[in-house]
Amino acid sequence: MVHPLEESEIRSALADVPAWERDGDRIRREFSFSSFVEAFGFMSSVALLAEKADHHPEWRNVYNRVVIELTTHDAGGLSERDFALARAIDAANGE
Amino acid sequence: MVHPLEESEIRSALADVPAWERDGDRIRREFSFSSFVEAFGFMSSVALLAEKADHHPEWRNVYNRVVIELTTHDAGGLSERDFALARAIDAANGE
Repeated sequence: MVHPLEESEIRSALADVPAWERDGDRIRREFSFSSFVEAFGFMSSVALLAEKADHHPEWRNVYNRVVIELTTHDAGGLSERDFALARAIDAANGE
Repeated sequence: MVHPLEESEIRSALADVPAWERDGDRIRREFSFSSFVEAFGFMSSVALLAEKADHHPEWRNVYNRVVIELTTHDAGGLSERDFALARAIDAANGE
């Protein structure tokens, strides 16, 4: 069982990943690239990060766009695992 | 401009990819794997096929599940390109 974050912890964690928007029990970010090859290359990086963290995104792709949503089902909401992966994804995006 | 298929052509093409279901101007199939690693490995194969065909899916993944939708925006509906990619995806799935 993963510990869900308190509201104050969520607000604090969101400050570190300002490009992510919160939607209830999840956070979401949309990425846009110059091509499908670029988009899928990014997805491959995220897949490795997710597998390493044993925490996996809900995500979708259409051509050069990738939308990633993170939540922690075991916690029934947002946990530190979501924000750790969000920070790693931002880093993989060169930020 | 890609030629959209007639209804009779769509019905005939669907017979070759029976695991795909039609939803109006698109076809959809859900795949289930034993793990995220298996699912993303399959997605990598599909990405290469899609790029080679210059025809890209609308798709989403949650852990071991992958849902792929195909349509041809340039044709305003289903075209032979959708069914060619569906057949190639089925083959990549070992069928």
